[in-house]
Amino acid sequence: MEARPKLHYPNGRGRMESVRWALAAAGVEFDEEFLETKEQLQKLQNGNHLLFQQVPMVEIDGMKLVQTRSILHYIAEKYHLFGNDLKEKTLIDMYVEGTLDLLEMIITHPFLKPNDQQKEVVSMTQKAVIRYFPVFEKILRDHGQRFLVGNQLSLADVILLQTILALEEKVPSILSAFPHLQEFTVKISNVPTIKRFLEPGSKKKPPPDDVYVRTVYTIFAP
Amino acid sequence: MEARPKLHYPNGRGRMESVRWALAAAGVEFDEEFLETKEQLQKLQNGNHLLFQQVPMVEIDGMKLVQTRSILHYIAEKYHLFGNDLKEKTLIDMYVEGTLDLLEMIITHPFLKPNDQQKEVVSMTQKAVIRYFPVFEKILRDHGQRFLVGNQLSLADVILLQTILALEEKVPSILSAFPHLQEFTVKISNVPTIKRFLEPGSKKKPPPDDVYVRTVYTIFAP
Repeated sequence: MEARPKLHYPNGRGRMESVRWALAAAGVEFDEEFLETKEQLQKLQNGNHLLFQQVPMVEIDGMKLVQTRSILHYIAEKYHLFGNDLKEKTLIDMYVEGTLDLLEMIITHPFLKPNDQQKEVVSMTQKAVIRYFPVFEKILRDHGQRFLVGNQLSLADVILLQTILALEEKVPSILSAFPHLQEFTVKISNVPTIKRFLEPGSKKKPPPDDVYVRTVYTIFAP
Repeated sequence: MEARPKLHYPNGRGRMESVRWALAAAGVEFDEEFLETKEQLQKLQNGNHLLFQQVPMVEIDGMKLVQTRSILHYIAEKYHLFGNDLKEKTLIDMYVEGTLDLLEMIITHPFLKPNDQQKEVVSMTQKAVIRYFPVFEKILRDHGQRFLVGNQLSLADVILLQTILALEEKVPSILSAFPHLQEFTVKISNVPTIKRFLEPGSKKKPPPDDVYVRTVYTIFAP
């Protein structure tokens, strides 16, 4: 039997949440080792388990993968979430990269000063509805399919759904002008592997709270 | 005959320089359309030539590729700069991602306030010699080969050389404690396609100067 992947990260979303989404969408069971103290991080660093001294790190297939994108690419290649040919893969890659630029604003948001947090919600909402959502709305409208690329589930669908749901937690009406994205959200949420991940008791993490923010500062403060 | 790729970006390094490096390393001739005014950018945006309204954009094989990483991945896949199997590709991907994190500091440096620029040189030098260079030094020392992965030229070698040379422009002695990286720099610089790119008259761009910084502000100011 293949060993289950083991994820090393604090017990919260951060940069690991996309990896959890991708594994869950692929139907892969995984284990998690939560970092809670600076000493745990240093132990990983001193044992040469982190190529560039940083988490996320994922033990999988005898490797210790780091760098969020590289981990996502490996999962997408291995579990057929990267399309059927180089053109499809390149579309998926571009859609993922654009969506990750948007998601980055959500990931860093809880670490802003309180005054800046509200401004940043305005800014990320504008980015979403002006730059990113119209692109995906048009793609879905034009080809009339359920998935973004090649009529099958890909990493692009997974990361876009993750990002939409995280934004909706902050701005519930954010999809109001995007009927095809609303439909997309419902349909991709009902893909069986993803449906399970969205149910209580899964390894999906809750929105970041003060405990998570304090834990991150404790672990990663220089 | 295949059409030559056409690159759309200002006449300077920025996020396009890695793309120029990758194409040059692959031995691919390309053309450039330099953005000089805000109107030129808006024309591209209004004509739906930029998926997420941003450059770099590269016309290649009938596609309009955007997002630096996606462009690099396409070039690496097409021109055999991504290793021989998924494990090699994943190593290359991780090395590139780490190096791009370092390169990002160099790309944004000319846009910092003068006072912050000097601090940032200290900070990027520390990052380079503490976090990144020791990793690559050890890889090269341990396997004793000329290239980082799989005994053949890959995107990882190309982006690392680009980053080393850009850092050496600011801190000439930055490799002094890394003999294998010194040797790597000489050897990769002598790969014939790269050697030509390093010679005068190539499409390699000079270090950013005030004209470049002003041009970028003019084009991209909201």
